[in-house]
Amino acid sequence: MNYDQIFEKAIERLHEEGRYRVFIDIMRNRGSFPNARCFAGHNGPKPITVWCSNDYLCMGQHPKVVEAMEGALHDVGAGSGGTRNIGGNTHLHIQLEEELAGLHAKEAALLFTSGYVSNEATLSTLAKLLPGCIVYSDELNHASMIAGIRNAGCEKRVFRHNDLTHLEELLAADDPEAPKLIAFESVYSMDGDIAPIAEICDLADKYNALTYLDEVHAVGMYGPHGGGISERDEVADRLTIIEGTLGKAFGVMGGYITAKKTLIDVIRSYAPGFIFTTSLSPVLVAGALASVRHLKESVEERDAQQAAAARLKTMMSEAGLPVMPSTTHIVPLLVGDPVKAKRISDVLLMEYGVYVQPINYPTVPRGTERLRFTPGPSHDETMMADLVKALVEVWDRLELQLAA
Amino acid sequence: MNYDQIFEKAIERLHEEGRYRVFIDIMRNRGSFPNARCFAGHNGPKPITVWCSNDYLCMGQHPKVVEAMEGALHDVGAGSGGTRNIGGNTHLHIQLEEELAGLHAKEAALLFTSGYVSNEATLSTLAKLLPGCIVYSDELNHASMIAGIRNAGCEKRVFRHNDLTHLEELLAADDPEAPKLIAFESVYSMDGDIAPIAEICDLADKYNALTYLDEVHAVGMYGPHGGGISERDEVADRLTIIEGTLGKAFGVMGGYITAKKTLIDVIRSYAPGFIFTTSLSPVLVAGALASVRHLKESVEERDAQQAAAARLKTMMSEAGLPVMPSTTHIVPLLVGDPVKAKRISDVLLMEYGVYVQPINYPTVPRGTERLRFTPGPSHDETMMADLVKALVEVWDRLELQLAA
Repeated sequence: MNYDQIFEKAIERLHEEGRYRVFIDIMRNRGSFPNARCFAGHNGPKPITVWCSNDYLCMGQHPKVVEAMEGALHDVGAGSGGTRNIGGNTHLHIQLEEELAGLHAKEAALLFTSGYVSNEATLSTLAKLLPGCIVYSDELNHASMIAGIRNAGCEKRVFRHNDLTHLEELLAADDPEAPKLIAFESVYSMDGDIAPIAEICDLADKYNALTYLDEVHAVGMYGPHGGGISERDEVADRLTIIEGTLGKAFGVMGGYITAKKTLIDVIRSYAPGFIFTTSLSPVLVAGALASVRHLKESVEERDAQQAAAARLKTMMSEAGLPVMPSTTHIVPLLVGDPVKAKRISDVLLMEYGVYVQPINYPTVPRGTERLRFTPGPSHDETMMADLVKALVEVWDRLELQLAA
Repeated sequence: MNYDQIFEKAIERLHEEGRYRVFIDIMRNRGSFPNARCFAGHNGPKPITVWCSNDYLCMGQHPKVVEAMEGALHDVGAGSGGTRNIGGNTHLHIQLEEELAGLHAKEAALLFTSGYVSNEATLSTLAKLLPGCIVYSDELNHASMIAGIRNAGCEKRVFRHNDLTHLEELLAADDPEAPKLIAFESVYSMDGDIAPIAEICDLADKYNALTYLDEVHAVGMYGPHGGGISERDEVADRLTIIEGTLGKAFGVMGGYITAKKTLIDVIRSYAPGFIFTTSLSPVLVAGALASVRHLKESVEERDAQQAAAARLKTMMSEAGLPVMPSTTHIVPLLVGDPVKAKRISDVLLMEYGVYVQPINYPTVPRGTERLRFTPGPSHDETMMADLVKALVEVWDRLELQLAA
């Protein structure tokens, strides 16, 4: 048994497939997002523009967020020092959970160290608490939901992406008495399309299924108060569990679920991924609290971000670039090949100071490799014009197809 | 299928067993740890003394840590804005990984959002990459290691706690050609005892097994530079993987592994729990970097903490309190009943301003319920005397047994 050889071969496979990942070494500059510095080895030290951040609304540099974090740092200190049960439950955690429950019009909320953990821990625990549970999972669900369902060890049915007919076929084919859970996302982050939430809830009602909605790419972004697509579509009360993140539009870090009080109590009491981990730093909690509160009141960031996304899509389309159909703030540009996607990204960074990450398998299916742009409220018209010009040049140089 | 009823029953079971958890609502006061404020509903608002924090060395309030976090907040902002691969890799992450690799004399390191995730993601991924792998797991291993091994879906052998004979029996009984991994901890956090690391490495050599050592309760605390028990015992180079946390002695939040470059590259490239999650906030990374660097040079905090732990054990023993045998900084006091453990904790908080959490099943085996004290460098002689006096009074009042 030569362990080293096995590990080396695992890495070689990635190189052969052109999907070995190199992490770009950067620092964003607070006060001037999306500007950043790129470090040595990656075209640096040199200024770059970040086009692929999930800090969609630049809340990571918002004065209220920074001030709240400073305040907590000065008042409470760096870390929580324990699990929620053993010394790590601060008053800030309780306040943030109340705020998040309110955001989604639910009775209660529960914080996790990340959105990934909230999905994994909640889905695996929920399905275990319901013996014989069958989970119906959209085929494009995020890796963290897939992990949770797999770790539950329950029956799983995968329905075609956003396909209500297929979902109903699967629901109808199973024992009407079996516990059922439909797990899906509102905004699918790599394509930018949206689930038919109300119709999925109709099916859930008809077949007595629970629903689990991942809103990580929508919270802060949609709905009059940033409650996500479920708030925008006025269906939040129909969902059993709404899950969100504090690390994207809210600009900080962490994840959460919201639901009825009893259900939150069950997950709080039974999920190992919640129980046995140091709670979120009070500094992060304070920042998230300020961010959620601000975006409940302010629509300015949401509007500016939607305008930027719409503008960039138009500019790319007009230049003949292969923008994928997206009904949201996400702007994916199809490449269809992992090596070319990486090459475009490298040239953009090295020669144009444009940072956009190639998205390859397993994040997206093979053959649909792409660049994924997330213009924010701070990407201005000049930046966009420079970007599109750079893309057209690179497309031309690498002999990629532009539309007529 | 009445879902609500199932959830309500799950909660009732916890109440019946006396192990329903109520999170105490507190805030520690930076600059004056272990002092804290307890909020309304929990005897508050009132000052309390925290006796159960895992911020063992009070680094969560260390000026260098706070300053570094402020610096990052001002320079970079609140959150990272993405996964390590997509926009969330800052120069601070790279620096901290280099620092941690150095701390454990390994080639490389990898950051995770928590110690829990580092265990779960690494163990599950590693065992999957080695087809037919058998994991040998100490029976007292932490829930996160158990989750990782279970989620790998591999063969698992549980050896009796720190029992070399049993471990060897199990190793010898398996196919010599099968890939093998021994997973264990250095300091077991609920008992405070230490694994025979060198002897376990001898067995690993003899049976060609990899080793995975969880040092979360030892990093920062043991060894001349805070490299843990493996540094103290000069065996770090014999271990395949050393795992640690940034959320206990280092006072911040996050987890990591260190190992050879290729192995780190494999986990970095294949572990969903690493790949598909927003990276640690640069603010936390900056704080952890300052903390690790400080504790590499300074022994003052470690010495003061060890002295406080030794002193408290002596005082408790002399008072006839049932201190469990612990060879480390952890001071467990046996109660043996979940309802009584909770009751003692409640009385201490309500009447004495002493906060120590009862530790019940599933964190410890039933029948060994306990209070777990973690005196730090800031717990002074007066605080200890007050604590022991309070404990003796409560023991007396609840008719618990004191030694002669």
